[in-house]
Amino acid sequence: MPKGAKELLKKLEYDFENIEYLDIALTHSSFVNEHISKTNNVSNERFEFLGDAVLDLIIGEYFFRSDESLREGKLSKLRSEVVNEQSLAKVSNELKLGSFIKFGKGELKSGGNQRESILADALEALIGAIYLDSDLETITKIVLKLFENILKEAESKKNFTDYKSRLQENLQQYNKNVVEYVLDKEEGPDNNKLFYSSVKVDGEVVGCGSGKTKKKSEQIAAKRALLKLGEKNV
Amino acid sequence: MPKGAKELLKKLEYDFENIEYLDIALTHSSFVNEHISKTNNVSNERFEFLGDAVLDLIIGEYFFRSDESLREGKLSKLRSEVVNEQSLAKVSNELKLGSFIKFGKGELKSGGNQRESILADALEALIGAIYLDSDLETITKIVLKLFENILKEAESKKNFTDYKSRLQENLQQYNKNVVEYVLDKEEGPDNNKLFYSSVKVDGEVVGCGSGKTKKKSEQIAAKRALLKLGEKNV
Repeated sequence: MPKGAKELLKKLEYDFENIEYLDIALTHSSFVNEHISKTNNVSNERFEFLGDAVLDLIIGEYFFRSDESLREGKLSKLRSEVVNEQSLAKVSNELKLGSFIKFGKGELKSGGNQRESILADALEALIGAIYLDSDLETITKIVLKLFENILKEAESKKNFTDYKSRLQENLQQYNKNVVEYVLDKEEGPDNNKLFYSSVKVDGEVVGCGSGKTKKKSEQIAAKRALLKLGEKNV
Repeated sequence: MPKGAKELLKKLEYDFENIEYLDIALTHSSFVNEHISKTNNVSNERFEFLGDAVLDLIIGEYFFRSDESLREGKLSKLRSEVVNEQSLAKVSNELKLGSFIKFGKGELKSGGNQRESILADALEALIGAIYLDSDLETITKIVLKLFENILKEAESKKNFTDYKSRLQENLQQYNKNVVEYVLDKEEGPDNNKLFYSSVKVDGEVVGCGSGKTKKKSEQIAAKRALLKLGEKNV
């Protein structure tokens, strides 16, 4: 078992049946390249391939189940906000994976244990290793816990800002494309203004809204338009 | 249940617990667009999103487990030979999915039930629907059966022609890059020639081979080089 890995397993709340899987997940190819004489050294690249597919399914299914009204394009976008190098490296850092990975001397010298891409790949490899060692249900629970904050963040962005784009997507479905936002009026003093906007689709007003910024009033108008169009979970 | 779908389920050897999932998987967005007043009509696009991830994992894991010596790049390549529009449309046609899909009138008129992209998408949606209705184990069995011939084909190509590229990949791992094939001699009459080749790595001969074509002799030479380099499962 890699040095200090006990702490890692405790954080993951997982015990490996095949502990060599953990070893492989934490072996960077630079280490294998420097030790080619020992033929049983295997790098984590194959596990990363597997883990990548496992992670895509877990996060994709999470958003799929989270909201029935989310269409395909939005699901892809939400997933890519969670499954990307930066987010993966962040989770990897929280687990301190960089300190457990076996590197070649050259790679370590050049700071490989802090490189985002390497940290992200190692997390995918670890996910692949746990999946291989257990099953989809087990790794799903672990992944959803590890990504809890990142998932929440992606969802809150979705809820907060997305009525306008959701309306646009929704209308494309009906082959209606000309969406126009009109600022109807502004009220109040400069430091406490209220904006009133309406949204027109093919020239017809389908929603009105007010808010403390122009953008907010448009969002509310889009939300009302979505309700009018019968979209659930608005 | 869609007309004639009993036959489809028999072919799949699967019974839906939630038969509405099958309905959704077989509903093209053009149908929904023509029936926007009935708000409970849902197209198969969300299921396609889910099925796509399920299929990537199943086929990726299949190749991952099939041969321990396959490296990451080769695994990706093999998967993309199986998971692509053309292969999916082929399987979709074998299931006659085109005849079960609900289309809008316009799409049907323009031949949507024969369009490869639509047939491929519907198969992914069907895979997503079965996964949602059951579990990964169940859909894995069904997918591996449906793709049996396509998987065999991809594997036979791999076994037949790939020693040269595998050697190339293998050597990249060791930062050895200069691979050269040399035709040493040709023997025999024109209609029954035998070719002798050797493969050099960084100037050193690492394998020799003979065959009825120059290409074959190089493949054998590459295979012997792989054996010499200690690659298993050559």
